[in-house]
Amino acid sequence: MDIITKDIHLQTNGFSDIINLTPKIDSIVSETGFSDGFCHIFAVGSTASISTMEFEPALVKDIKEKLEDFASKNMKSHHSETWGDDNGFSHIRATFMGPGITVPIRDGKCIVGTWQQIVVIDHDNRSRKRHVVVQIVGK
Amino acid sequence: MDIITKDIHLQTNGFSDIINLTPKIDSIVSETGFSDGFCHIFAVGSTASISTMEFEPALVKDIKEKLEDFASKNMKSHHSETWGDDNGFSHIRATFMGPGITVPIRDGKCIVGTWQQIVVIDHDNRSRKRHVVVQIVGK
Amino acid sequence: MDIITKDIHLQTNGFSDIINLTPKIDSIVSETGFSDGFCHIFAVGSTASISTMEFEPALVKDIKEKLEDFASKNMKSHHSETWGDDNGFSHIRATFMGPGITVPIRDGKCIVGTWQQIVVIDHDNRSRKRHVVVQIVGK
Repeated sequence: MDIITKDIHLQTNGFSDIINLTPKIDSIVSETGFSDGFCHIFAVGSTASISTMEFEPALVKDIKEKLEDFASKNMKSHHSETWGDDNGFSHIRATFMGPGITVPIRDGKCIVGTWQQIVVIDHDNRSRKRHVVVQIVGK
Repeated sequence: MDIITKDIHLQTNGFSDIINLTPKIDSIVSETGFSDGFCHIFAVGSTASISTMEFEPALVKDIKEKLEDFASKNMKSHHSETWGDDNGFSHIRATFMGPGITVPIRDGKCIVGTWQQIVVIDHDNRSRKRHVVVQIVGK
Repeated sequence: MDIITKDIHLQTNGFSDIINLTPKIDSIVSETGFSDGFCHIFAVGSTASISTMEFEPALVKDIKEKLEDFASKNMKSHHSETWGDDNGFSHIRATFMGPGITVPIRDGKCIVGTWQQIVVIDHDNRSRKRHVVVQIVGK
């Protein structure tokens, strides 16, 4: 067994912008040549999350609306009042959803459903560069 | 160190039906003969989640009620309106909770609390077959 | 590759008390001497969670308030009514947030953001001893 660590850098729009990482992760997994193992995907920073979802435009809208409902971009927060950066809601969303997930690999491919894509959600309140770490552990 | 990948197939009732996977996982871990390592449990598909909880009937009711409160089966969603499958709420619940967890193993056993069971929650809006992947990494 | 399992025992105040584990985890990772790998952090028990956040007092307050908003310590629950331990809300919070996370390691250090700390959140309704398992897998 061995471990390979790769980086994905991407530009996001914030406010829970959702980006499909699956094609990039599939190609990273494929390049390792590992047949069996798993893939860990981790969002660096305290205002982004990783999860899976059916990546289609209507559901992207639904998830964004539910996140707005859960912790609105207009909510008052001690964090925003203290630091003046207005992104208390971003932190709250990220801490609830968590920074990463692990996906199993078999026959050189991620074992996911046909309508299950791996996504990064950037909850921050501005466009920014994001760093996602992808680790493949396998044989 | 080595990795062993196993599949659990089960029948669920949907609407956040909660099923205790612990006995099955304990037996998979035991069969590997690994003393130290960890176990990753992953729900294939975009409408199910894995977590831990005290698996007792009253709390099962509470969790289901909180999920209904969080994203009701009667909520309107762009996903349901677009695709007509009425399970937007299922996707939202699943993406928030996440598709998998990892549990440490020591002395050949999962390190969990006495009242901490590993569960799959099927959020979909119908009875269906579920596929859960269990990977044991250890030595 | 090898795996090393360590235990953290700590005293918490309950009601979603949030404790920064980063210094302890940094020192565990450093002691392993591993250059590349990952670290899995798992809360034993069904009323605690692990996540990441910017660990600063204002945001600690915000997260605790949002958890209270999500599942109040005064909420009625079947669990509390059945068992008389008044901590149904603690279980609900813990099951939603999940019991653990995995963090990548490179050059002997956790790859996290400058303002991203690893925390345990004890949702229980009393002061108690907590057991967190830290596993380092690497080379």
